[in-house]
Amino acid sequence: MASNAAERALDQSVDIESYMLDLGRQARAASRVIARSSTAQKNAALLLMADAIQARREPISEANQLDLEAGKAKGLDSAMLDRLALTPARIDNMIEGLRQVAALPDPVGEISDMRFRPSGIQVGKMRVPLGVVGIIYESRPNVTCEAASLCLKSGNAVILRGGSEALHSNQAIAQCIEIGLSAAGIDPNAVQVVATTDRAAVGRLITMTEYVDVIIPRGGKSLIERISAEARVPVIKHLDGICHVYIDDKADYQKAMDIAINAKTQRYGTCNTMETLLVAQGIAARILPALAKAYKDAGVEMRACKQSLALMDGAIAATPADWSTEYLAPILAIKIVADLDEAMDHIAQYSSAHTEAIVTEDFSRAQRFLREVDSSSVIVNASTRFADGFEYGLGAEIGISTDKLHARGPVGLEGLTSQKYIVLGDGQIRT
Amino acid sequence: MASNAAERALDQSVDIESYMLDLGRQARAASRVIARSSTAQKNAALLLMADAIQARREPISEANQLDLEAGKAKGLDSAMLDRLALTPARIDNMIEGLRQVAALPDPVGEISDMRFRPSGIQVGKMRVPLGVVGIIYESRPNVTCEAASLCLKSGNAVILRGGSEALHSNQAIAQCIEIGLSAAGIDPNAVQVVATTDRAAVGRLITMTEYVDVIIPRGGKSLIERISAEARVPVIKHLDGICHVYIDDKADYQKAMDIAINAKTQRYGTCNTMETLLVAQGIAARILPALAKAYKDAGVEMRACKQSLALMDGAIAATPADWSTEYLAPILAIKIVADLDEAMDHIAQYSSAHTEAIVTEDFSRAQRFLREVDSSSVIVNASTRFADGFEYGLGAEIGISTDKLHARGPVGLEGLTSQKYIVLGDGQIRT
Repeated sequence: MASNAAERALDQSVDIESYMLDLGRQARAASRVIARSSTAQKNAALLLMADAIQARREPISEANQLDLEAGKAKGLDSAMLDRLALTPARIDNMIEGLRQVAALPDPVGEISDMRFRPSGIQVGKMRVPLGVVGIIYESRPNVTCEAASLCLKSGNAVILRGGSEALHSNQAIAQCIEIGLSAAGIDPNAVQVVATTDRAAVGRLITMTEYVDVIIPRGGKSLIERISAEARVPVIKHLDGICHVYIDDKADYQKAMDIAINAKTQRYGTCNTMETLLVAQGIAARILPALAKAYKDAGVEMRACKQSLALMDGAIAATPADWSTEYLAPILAIKIVADLDEAMDHIAQYSSAHTEAIVTEDFSRAQRFLREVDSSSVIVNASTRFADGFEYGLGAEIGISTDKLHARGPVGLEGLTSQKYIVLGDGQIRT
Repeated sequence: MASNAAERALDQSVDIESYMLDLGRQARAASRVIARSSTAQKNAALLLMADAIQARREPISEANQLDLEAGKAKGLDSAMLDRLALTPARIDNMIEGLRQVAALPDPVGEISDMRFRPSGIQVGKMRVPLGVVGIIYESRPNVTCEAASLCLKSGNAVILRGGSEALHSNQAIAQCIEIGLSAAGIDPNAVQVVATTDRAAVGRLITMTEYVDVIIPRGGKSLIERISAEARVPVIKHLDGICHVYIDDKADYQKAMDIAINAKTQRYGTCNTMETLLVAQGIAARILPALAKAYKDAGVEMRACKQSLALMDGAIAATPADWSTEYLAPILAIKIVADLDEAMDHIAQYSSAHTEAIVTEDFSRAQRFLREVDSSSVIVNASTRFADGFEYGLGAEIGISTDKLHARGPVGLEGLTSQKYIVLGDGQIRT
């Protein structure tokens, strides 16, 4: 980010308050321009950004190396260092991601539901950008590129605030973004990367209601809770994923096996991974011993309720805390329930309202589960692991919302837009 | 509202904290039940509420009389007393309103956009209630009935907090609502009316994030600003309506006359009334003298910019404050602008982003205005007065949102719902 304000902040010669207000004002001004940029112009900018990253792989890697060395010196753990690393494959992914977003349909300006009213006016809706988006994220520097591309395509200006541990990497990527925007003739203030590691910058970003329309935090639960508590700007948040699979006694045995194994073991660290397996009493004795063997082979620690403990070789006893824990690890809680109602009661009490699945061949039970379970994704006969933007066909996602307002579940380009009413008349007045 | 908690609060024998937490818990529990109530059951409750109000016109009027007398004694102004009064016609309107909401299509459970993905899963969205809605409003007791009916139909539980000056009227209406709910077999806690005038109740309502999903304040700007500043629960807010009409030099003369007069004079106190008229230089000399005569005849005070002052007989000079004032009165600010761009710049600077209209026969200018003006309603060749839920065909509205997130413009049943993703599979797992 080469705006003057950012450079001054890097020099640490201005105060955070006026620096952030400058970013806000510049973003608000740029948002008016980007909102009316043509689809062709936005796509050109995305492709030019991809070219710039390709051309500048070396300085990006060098900047990333600085961050990695500083991170090692600071004693970051290996998971954190892994997320921080921009490997050649990850740089390839950034480039490919930009090209994919360029290929997505432009949501801005889409008109829907135009209907004539008895008064003679024709009323409908037009999809419009939100304005200025603020994104706060941790370690992974490729988020800089993903978030910028989605905000740009949806016609929003964005202020990006990455983790301090990724400062050099983020600045190197920001330079490529600026090259792309400028070459396409778009105000480079449409994408601004906060160039200071001072935490006061976040406090200001999430309270500048006059300049920022929505905040999207990406990162651990504590980051998101802190931001939600302190923000004055509306927040689209993604809290934890305590996801359930319920195997009904009318389940197809093989589908239940496949889904229960896949939902837990395909990846452990993702928010849509199953954390609690609920099994109907009527099928428990038939399926749990086989599942126990599969989990044991996969190295999954099983924490079983009293009833299921005897059926699962290698399991240990669950404690009450297990029902409300997001493990993000090869650990699974298992509970036998009487029926669908008890399963849905358990979900209503313990779920984080992210994603729940039922395995059943019973039509009416599937319908009840779909309707009554109040989570952002409700699934029949498929793995919870499908709950993400790519699998749902959104093209890309900026996060998964566990909120109910505005956007729920995977948030793609549409979630970064709003709809205004438009009215076409021929001189009508109200009587 | 005859829940035990409410009765206890009326006795003033419990503290507000535990009273509000009781209301919250009861609302959350009721929300799970009402969310899965059938359309027939909800409609039956609405019609039974209408019958109950019809049967209890007398006690409602008596309760309203108590409020009116107390209001007079407290020295409420005549506009406030008028809003407080439940005339026979207004009671008729409440009854008719309930029947109209019963006749609206049920938004809950609506499934859309179901598409197969390459993985074989079928993904789409299902419309679901938000959960628990908190509504805070002033004087007009008929809001109790309108808000309850819209929340009920959209499957939400609601906590209603009316003005202290309408306490008896609101309680009388709440009794009818409870009669209707009970007779239809719906948990009466689905609609709870706060039975205390203690302002601490509002403070608690807007911060109970565990029990309340959204707050909708209805009332004056200061009420809404205070609630927005203090709420921890998301707020759908309706701030002021500084609405503009721009008469382009390519406008049809008669349409421009009709719209400019109607948008100002059809009603003065409504948020969609025009407050500033912008006129293109090229048509000003032709249209402003005739408009001045019409406004003068209607008793509208004209506050004109330097250029327009000479063209408008009876006008006085506008001051800078006029461009950002919502008069809600027979006063109009008038400004001559060079062209469409200057008009849109003025709107971007001074509008409250509620409703703006252009009068023009020029296709490309109309298209630019529709796309570039960032307001909740953007109108071509019709009066700003059309911007409301009934005129737009929403059936009824719970407010007009000047926010961008979730709901923008008139908010009807759909704005009181959200969409969750649903996935139908046949045993699919992620690879």
